[in-house]
Amino acid sequence: MKLPVSTEWLLHCAATLAQLDPGATASAAQLAQYYDLPAAYLAKQLQGLVKAGVLTATTGPRGGFRLAQPASEITLLRIVEAVDGTSPPYECREIRQQGVGALSPEECRTICPLAQKMAEAHDAWRRSLADVSLADIIATLPPTAPARTRSRLASTTGAAPARRTP
Amino acid sequence: MKLPVSTEWLLHCAATLAQLDPGATASAAQLAQYYDLPAAYLAKQLQGLVKAGVLTATTGPRGGFRLAQPASEITLLRIVEAVDGTSPPYECREIRQQGVGALSPEECRTICPLAQKMAEAHDAWRRSLADVSLADIIATLPPTAPARTRSRLASTTGAAPARRTP
Repeated sequence: MKLPVSTEWLLHCAATLAQLDPGATASAAQLAQYYDLPAAYLAKQLQGLVKAGVLTATTGPRGGFRLAQPASEITLLRIVEAVDGTSPPYECREIRQQGVGALSPEECRTICPLAQKMAEAHDAWRRSLADVSLADIIATLPPTAPARTRSRLASTTGAAPARRTP
Repeated sequence: MKLPVSTEWLLHCAATLAQLDPGATASAAQLAQYYDLPAAYLAKQLQGLVKAGVLTATTGPRGGFRLAQPASEITLLRIVEAVDGTSPPYECREIRQQGVGALSPEECRTICPLAQKMAEAHDAWRRSLADVSLADIIATLPPTAPARTRSRLASTTGAAPARRTP
């Protein structure tokens, strides 16, 4: 049971965008330089967050990515599920209905108790991540962190004005 | 983030063994017939539960698998982690320490707040599964279920007396 390596990338990129001034953006190239990540792959992953409504992508000379909502409304769960999808890790293929021990369809009108408990565990994981917003994460950083983040991000060479897409 | 398909198999096999009379065993071949599963692969997986201390394997004419402990002491977490391992799904590769935005080692003496929250979610998942024992699962079944399970398991042809290993 593994989340993609890019989960760490996207959580950090979103937390970085949460530290920008209102309306400011960062390009995929800038974020890739900021964290020394492969730019093309990161750009594709960032588009996934746009599709999920977590980020907004703007084009043009000052184009790039920014949060689509206030940081207090973007939870870690939304970012993780934007990267990895929403399907639960445990798959019940109803083996209780096959083989010599097969239960009848009538006996299987309710969810298998094992699948039920696995689903409850996944719910606990989701609740835990839904309880933490990007604003909560930023609140754990030193007060000087956002200004430094903005300054370092501005020092990247990734913000090529001629780029049409972020 | 996916658990192996065999997670369902092992959870069900353990719940089936929890319904046997004290001291009784079932072979991998019997359990495979009971659920219509590939016997050789199931046998290998059952050995994994033996290594994890969840099951005991006995050899000889009446050999097979049985629970290594009372059903009330075997949690779903132990079974799931015996199948899938104990490593958490989120991997923190410390990208906060690389690239233009790299934090200093001094600033990274404590765990990354994002990794911390991901770990807390995994803990919530683990706690949820550690809270449910095989006895709890059996308690949800109709009172007639264990007797039927034993009878159907006995009707399998998988119990070949000449087999030296289960």
